[in-house]
Amino acid sequence: TGAAIYAPNMGKCSFEHVPVAEGDEITVEDMVLQVVDTPGHTPEHVSYVVIDTSRGTEPVAVFCGDTLFVGDVGRPDLFPGRAHELADSLYTSLHDKLLNLPEHCEVYPAHAAGSLCGRAMAAKRQSTIGYEKRYNDALHIQDREEFIASLTTDMPPAPDHFGRCSAINGRGPALVSSLPTPRALAPHEFAASASRHDTVIVDVRPYSAFGGQHIAGAFSLDMAGNLPTFAGWVVPPDKDILLVTADAGQVSEAVDWLRRVGMDRTVAYLEGGMAAWATAGLPIRHLPQLSAQELEETVAAHAGAIVVDTRAPAEYLAAHIRKSISMQVADIRTRFGELDKSAETLVVCSTGNRSSLGASMLMQRGFMNVKNVAGGVTGYVAAGFSLES
Amino acid sequence: TGAAIYAPNMGKCSFEHVPVAEGDEITVEDMVLQVVDTPGHTPEHVSYVVIDTSRGTEPVAVFCGDTLFVGDVGRPDLFPGRAHELADSLYTSLHDKLLNLPEHCEVYPAHAAGSLCGRAMAAKRQSTIGYEKRYNDALHIQDREEFIASLTTDMPPAPDHFGRCSAINGRGPALVSSLPTPRALAPHEFAASASRHDTVIVDVRPYSAFGGQHIAGAFSLDMAGNLPTFAGWVVPPDKDILLVTADAGQVSEAVDWLRRVGMDRTVAYLEGGMAAWATAGLPIRHLPQLSAQELEETVAAHAGAIVVDTRAPAEYLAAHIRKSISMQVADIRTRFGELDKSAETLVVCSTGNRSSLGASMLMQRGFMNVKNVAGGVTGYVAAGFSLES
Repeated sequence: TGAAIYAPNMGKCSFEHVPVAEGDEITVEDMVLQVVDTPGHTPEHVSYVVIDTSRGTEPVAVFCGDTLFVGDVGRPDLFPGRAHELADSLYTSLHDKLLNLPEHCEVYPAHAAGSLCGRAMAAKRQSTIGYEKRYNDALHIQDREEFIASLTTDMPPAPDHFGRCSAINGRGPALVSSLPTPRALAPHEFAASASRHDTVIVDVRPYSAFGGQHIAGAFSLDMAGNLPTFAGWVVPPDKDILLVTADAGQVSEAVDWLRRVGMDRTVAYLEGGMAAWATAGLPIRHLPQLSAQELEETVAAHAGAIVVDTRAPAEYLAAHIRKSISMQVADIRTRFGELDKSAETLVVCSTGNRSSLGASMLMQRGFMNVKNVAGGVTGYVAAGFSLES
Repeated sequence: TGAAIYAPNMGKCSFEHVPVAEGDEITVEDMVLQVVDTPGHTPEHVSYVVIDTSRGTEPVAVFCGDTLFVGDVGRPDLFPGRAHELADSLYTSLHDKLLNLPEHCEVYPAHAAGSLCGRAMAAKRQSTIGYEKRYNDALHIQDREEFIASLTTDMPPAPDHFGRCSAINGRGPALVSSLPTPRALAPHEFAASASRHDTVIVDVRPYSAFGGQHIAGAFSLDMAGNLPTFAGWVVPPDKDILLVTADAGQVSEAVDWLRRVGMDRTVAYLEGGMAAWATAGLPIRHLPQLSAQELEETVAAHAGAIVVDTRAPAEYLAAHIRKSISMQVADIRTRFGELDKSAETLVVCSTGNRSSLGASMLMQRGFMNVKNVAGGVTGYVAAGFSLES
């Protein structure tokens, strides 16, 4: 569009931009955006305080990125070795800067519930300084050291792609026009591409469809299940991606979502989907789906059945199915050796998406008797069974 | 959907509803909506204060309808003979109720800029109590009598349909399923319908297209020009509406917009539009469009040319084209007799939409030498000509 890009001076971005730092002002008609350095979530983080000069001189709103969320604060623990330093900066950014804004000032964070950039974000997308001061638990920790400790211990997992973000953002994303447009590949061409070592198959269909039939080796990454986060987390970033979708219309959405986590290498999709694959006579795999009742019966009847809970550790600790073991989905990559490949392995998460991914990752590693619990822990409870904690 | 409708007890609505009044609470999961009587814009007006019990006990937001707007307050002058009484109530609703909410409380009004329910609303859709307290001029009038006077003198015009709103809302809108679905009429059928006395033609195409060709007697109501307000204002509510649109896809949008101002009688549209009408050999009219330069030249050259400014009186008073006379578009219905039907009549507004409507209304009344100023006062100024005030 030719629009100027403003970015923090400290970020030292290598693309063309207007570097900004505390004290700078950007004027857009009646609006003045004042730059405030608010390091903490990242070292170079800035916030933008908005003055609407057509109405008055006090701030009307602040765009505070990943510093202050609705009901939470940003995570300072995403840069290895710098968590304490960044948590300390975050305390200063919040208590000495953002919280000095007027109570009436509107707060527009960069994320809401669903993001792993915080721990307990609300689904609500904006708030006010006064409301957050009153009801945001993270802001109620007045002691600096206590605040730092609270944000550097027992934090949620950090997806792998978080570690790649700063570098990608710093050099600027690739122009969309320079990225590959996924080619439609007929089943035999797709199979030939999939057999190469520099490709991976990402199957974004509903986990039920993956269960019914899929291509051996595919990742099950249901688009209903936070595809960007989990793709960024577990799909190798140095491979070309071959997509399997429910229909051709889903391709561009999946491509966009993958790009948002820096995965720009979606080179092809399976033309005609799994129906075409099957009618081409190519081999398929399937992943049996268990109902809550079947899970319960299996656990009761077979002492050898293993229930693997792929949710985050905190979710597992809160409540889980009896005798299940905790192995969050991304950890399967390093911890699969703890499991018996020949055992009946029942994978569960909260609804069935992450467990389908986990099951697909176990199958990639040679587990042959894997089943997915459709509906997950949520369905298990809804069916009247009790969890342990 | 079967959802319950909550409505003010004082409104005495005749449809099935849960009547509410001050002190009532509606609980929706974690949210508690507290009803507050806030008469002023209407006698039965209520606001809903929202408590998010999952976060705290103080209000997170208020849905304040037409009481408090971003940058303005609701109009109390829309019920003939009751303006003083309602302005007095509004003062109480604001100063004794809404403004006692915490500064951090978010404010969600029912309208923003474009509505005639206030005078000076901002385009921004929400605000906070604290920000409005500081920067809303209408709230700075502390003296009750002065506040009342400010809202009962020199108010903007009130469209005709405002007077019909309370009755329609009170008995409940007609179910969409009971309303006519506009029939596609071929040109000769459309012409036959248009010749009946119980129909009017509403032409929602761009004013340029209306200028090029239109059906005699049609109202020019460009969809880009606040169709609902002006249709509700000048189109007779007791007639069936025959639509002329740019294409068939525009029909349902126009029908929806007309319904929002209580005009439920859109019974047909011209199939194939004006192109089909013209190829059917039926008679057309046109409305010449003048550029800013042509307007200037005409005014300079022809002493007999009359410039009619159809904007609201306040807009005219602020600045207008020299020698133009003020006749806001709705007033043409009663004031057209002040104009000479045989004179060259150049109609102008701010951009060309309201003036095209005004021109169409003059043509309905037998004015044969009417022209529309494309681009209006905005284009006139942009072309380098000066306004008077």
